[in-house]
Amino acid sequence: MYSSRLNRFFQVMQQAGLDAIALNPGPTQFYLTGMPFHLMERPVVLLAALGHEPFLLLPELEARKLEQAPYPLQAVTYSDNPAGWQAAFDRAAAALRLDGRLVGVEPTALRFLELEFLRRAAPSARFTSAEGAIASLRMQKDPAELECMRKAVQAAQAALQATLPFIRAGVTERQVAAELSVQLLKAGSDAHSSFTPIVSGGPNSANPHATPSDRALTPGDLLVIDWGAAVDGYYSDLTRTFAIGEVDPEYKRIASVVRQANEAGRTASKPGVPAGAVDRAARDVIAASGYAQFFTHRTGHGLGMEVHEPPYIFAENDLLLAPGMTYTVEPGIYLPGRGGVRIEDNVVITETGCETLSDLPRELVQL
Amino acid sequence: MYSSRLNRFFQVMQQAGLDAIALNPGPTQFYLTGMPFHLMERPVVLLAALGHEPFLLLPELEARKLEQAPYPLQAVTYSDNPAGWQAAFDRAAAALRLDGRLVGVEPTALRFLELEFLRRAAPSARFTSAEGAIASLRMQKDPAELECMRKAVQAAQAALQATLPFIRAGVTERQVAAELSVQLLKAGSDAHSSFTPIVSGGPNSANPHATPSDRALTPGDLLVIDWGAAVDGYYSDLTRTFAIGEVDPEYKRIASVVRQANEAGRTASKPGVPAGAVDRAARDVIAASGYAQFFTHRTGHGLGMEVHEPPYIFAENDLLLAPGMTYTVEPGIYLPGRGGVRIEDNVVITETGCETLSDLPRELVQL
Repeated sequence: MYSSRLNRFFQVMQQAGLDAIALNPGPTQFYLTGMPFHLMERPVVLLAALGHEPFLLLPELEARKLEQAPYPLQAVTYSDNPAGWQAAFDRAAAALRLDGRLVGVEPTALRFLELEFLRRAAPSARFTSAEGAIASLRMQKDPAELECMRKAVQAAQAALQATLPFIRAGVTERQVAAELSVQLLKAGSDAHSSFTPIVSGGPNSANPHATPSDRALTPGDLLVIDWGAAVDGYYSDLTRTFAIGEVDPEYKRIASVVRQANEAGRTASKPGVPAGAVDRAARDVIAASGYAQFFTHRTGHGLGMEVHEPPYIFAENDLLLAPGMTYTVEPGIYLPGRGGVRIEDNVVITETGCETLSDLPRELVQL
Repeated sequence: MYSSRLNRFFQVMQQAGLDAIALNPGPTQFYLTGMPFHLMERPVVLLAALGHEPFLLLPELEARKLEQAPYPLQAVTYSDNPAGWQAAFDRAAAALRLDGRLVGVEPTALRFLELEFLRRAAPSARFTSAEGAIASLRMQKDPAELECMRKAVQAAQAALQATLPFIRAGVTERQVAAELSVQLLKAGSDAHSSFTPIVSGGPNSANPHATPSDRALTPGDLLVIDWGAAVDGYYSDLTRTFAIGEVDPEYKRIASVVRQANEAGRTASKPGVPAGAVDRAARDVIAASGYAQFFTHRTGHGLGMEVHEPPYIFAENDLLLAPGMTYTVEPGIYLPGRGGVRIEDNVVITETGCETLSDLPRELVQL
């Protein structure tokens, strides 16, 4: 599996006009090697250059992980004295003849740390975003990847259902988030899932990216829960909105509008359609109800080994959807100072349309 | 509190000869603002330049977080269409007159994403590591920070004690890690702690950075557990080693050597002493026992809002320890293919010496 991924990687590199790609620890490095490294202050860089065996640069204390290499790798290790790290990069750059080359990097992953070592090791190399190439490598999930995502959706749904009896007026957002986190682990979510639930009640629910606070849930609140699980390295990412006791009739109205927008976005999801059409389908429903200004974010984002990855579902995106692409559909309406509603599902593009992986009720359930 | 931190930030900036510092979401940004942003594909950058109000660049959907600003901030928001992001950076760079300036960044935090936007917005600016300046800002913890770290140590210790009855031959590393993760949450660790426990048994324990596997614990195994909690944004990071049933006499011997090395490292920890002396004190004990080649990593690392931060405890580090500095002391001996021992404590430098925050037994306990 990893050898064929590596071959495809070299193909997308060539198609993108890149001579090499540098990857630090994260989903793409793991996708290509299956070797578990984590991001830290010691650089771990996989360098792949056309015409060469891939080169891995890693700390000596992780050297034994080289035994897990899925194909032949060149490697250099370094000690815990940072004074020696540049020499390791110099060796890698020399072995791959990086100087003067065009080297792709992941803009949201590669850091100043690795970039500066690479620049010094290959002063005439140019560095550019490999975002498109890497998206084309990873965007269309294979059946084994989809199976992980289905399990991640099921684990997340089971965890929420186990948490619901715990939720009532008087309980704080933070307490709900902690209980949900426990239930996620019990439902089989990876312990190293880095996805913190958003649990936001009342006025906080009008903030799409709220952090769980010590505010207690209060009758009349809207409650937004945005959570997910990770199974074998693949994520789910769902949102449901609840009513704490009886709520303002307008809240029920916006909940109904968001539910229709969510459905419109999923219905618009088909192979051959631009990603932007999904956003516009959902957005049009909200605009038609007069709430356009209160839907302040894109309709969704790709989902897989990262919680946010391509394809991004924003109006101007002309990327054509294709079978195996997985993303969220998550329209929302946020009334500042009052409350918000978001309903988020995870979908996969099929040969003929779209399958929704998540099936929890989308109605505004009163707790 | 945040205003005085900002003032100190401007001071260290000036002392380091920097005109400005750019920070993306992470501990330093949070330390300076208390505003909760997370790292994602949308850039959120705090730009501080001498002689100007700080400038925050953020997505429109998080605009309401500006209400939580602890002091006056200039700000620009952008929409979810990436085509408009450069313009936001251009505005920030113009407002702060960044072009031609020397801009410090955090090497292990700032990414190619933000760096390229900044370079295009200020083509003549030069970018350099602000690692030293930021270390001097954050390395010496104040009493409130130390209180969080004490709580994080206590939560971690309570979680391990609640997990021990679960550990026996036949249970897998991954099961132990999941149970420990649940117990960490129950003990009060933040749900967004990103610290995955290392649980490694038998031959896996010889790999200092192992990932929990499906291997079942077996009589005769050494078992290394490296775990921590996070309380109010501050981490603990501990390691203890256990014996599963009766183990090889050599394992007991190396456990005793590592325990003495741990104690030597803590005893050497004093204000005015170079960080390297702590490493050498621990390393000498292991070398004197003939195991030098099997201690493949530095003796420790700083600890606080990050699990790894300055001061790093490696032999060549001549940084002088000072009151309030917090770090790990964690020597180990790893016998390839057989097993390893590591004993890790968290310490704080005091006016006269060092206080060890963790107090779980350091003997090789048989489970």
